[in-house]
Amino acid sequence: MSSSAAGRVPQGERSQAMRRRLLDATVRCLVEYGWSGTSTVLVSERAGVSRGAQLHHFPTKNHLVLAAVEHLWESRAEAHRAAFAALPDGPDKVHRVVHLLGEHFSGDLYTAALELWVAARSDAALHEAVVRLEQRIGQAAHRRTVEALGVDESVPGVRELVQATLDLVRGLGLANTLTDDSARRARILDRWARTLDQALRTATP
Amino acid sequence: MSSSAAGRVPQGERSQAMRRRLLDATVRCLVEYGWSGTSTVLVSERAGVSRGAQLHHFPTKNHLVLAAVEHLWESRAEAHRAAFAALPDGPDKVHRVVHLLGEHFSGDLYTAALELWVAARSDAALHEAVVRLEQRIGQAAHRRTVEALGVDESVPGVRELVQATLDLVRGLGLANTLTDDSARRARILDRWARTLDQALRTATP
Repeated sequence: MSSSAAGRVPQGERSQAMRRRLLDATVRCLVEYGWSGTSTVLVSERAGVSRGAQLHHFPTKNHLVLAAVEHLWESRAEAHRAAFAALPDGPDKVHRVVHLLGEHFSGDLYTAALELWVAARSDAALHEAVVRLEQRIGQAAHRRTVEALGVDESVPGVRELVQATLDLVRGLGLANTLTDDSARRARILDRWARTLDQALRTATP
Repeated sequence: MSSSAAGRVPQGERSQAMRRRLLDATVRCLVEYGWSGTSTVLVSERAGVSRGAQLHHFPTKNHLVLAAVEHLWESRAEAHRAAFAALPDGPDKVHRVVHLLGEHFSGDLYTAALELWVAARSDAALHEAVVRLEQRIGQAAHRRTVEALGVDESVPGVRELVQATLDLVRGLGLANTLTDDSARRARILDRWARTLDQALRTATP
């Protein structure tokens, strides 16, 4: 952007755009270099933002990474909702929901979140904020899954089956971090979907 | 140990004991401070081993952490096998196996391995060795689970149900890293054990 073009963009918008560039660069660094390889200096270079401006927006690495994961999650939430809403009704519904969850939990949002969660385990300053964020993300994913499956959580066992499905895709996401696990994952999710479908139909106390 | 007592211990044994102290200290550091908080200096202090002796055994942090996770796994493998072997047969067998797996995947071995797996994601030098170790550990856990359940993997679907169970407990282990998730985990494993039991009885292509 030339300085004359920049001059026509209001200050608030430029500041928002700079903030977004910093958050996007943070996610790219987390995915590529991991938590310990991500530094505020590297992020400001990648984002093309001065150190001063970066420190103004995010005073520490912890602020930056926490905001980046939250920003990525919020920017994806609408797409995830839309993907669930677009699933056709029919006998394949559970299969489609389960595979869609498998995709959502094996992409860059999962990877960036994993780096943050693991770092927060042994960082007292991060811990509380990450627990709150994890609860928000977890509750939203749970609510969306219940809606997409069209199930009634007051039926005993249904809530735990939905939770198990989300914990399964978290475990599969982990298995996918070191090698491409997509073929194995697809077979497991096929069988899980069939088992879940049956269990949801017959859930009793 | 006094120097005169040390003098009576053969050199090979002392070297083995030193190696074990280094590995134990590495696991304690990983659990307490995480990957980025674990340094070779901190480990040698914790272990009471000189830097020179430490470098002789493990030239880099990567060597040290990889060996520590492998050592911890090997030292637990016998206990895990024994715990599975001690499970009584009967209608509760699947329930007991599933809960035992949930325990194994939420302790310090899981935590130390998680730190190593996540670090290896973005560290080319570690990646290959960790993939090999992960495969060994994963295959052993799978084999033990199949034996403990007493199921036949040639029946279509059985292999995937066992894999799903292991990926579920990996996901539950992750959920347990930030907060104590044991009450929620117990409810989920209760329901999954019931579902798995039913699915194993009726597995068909």
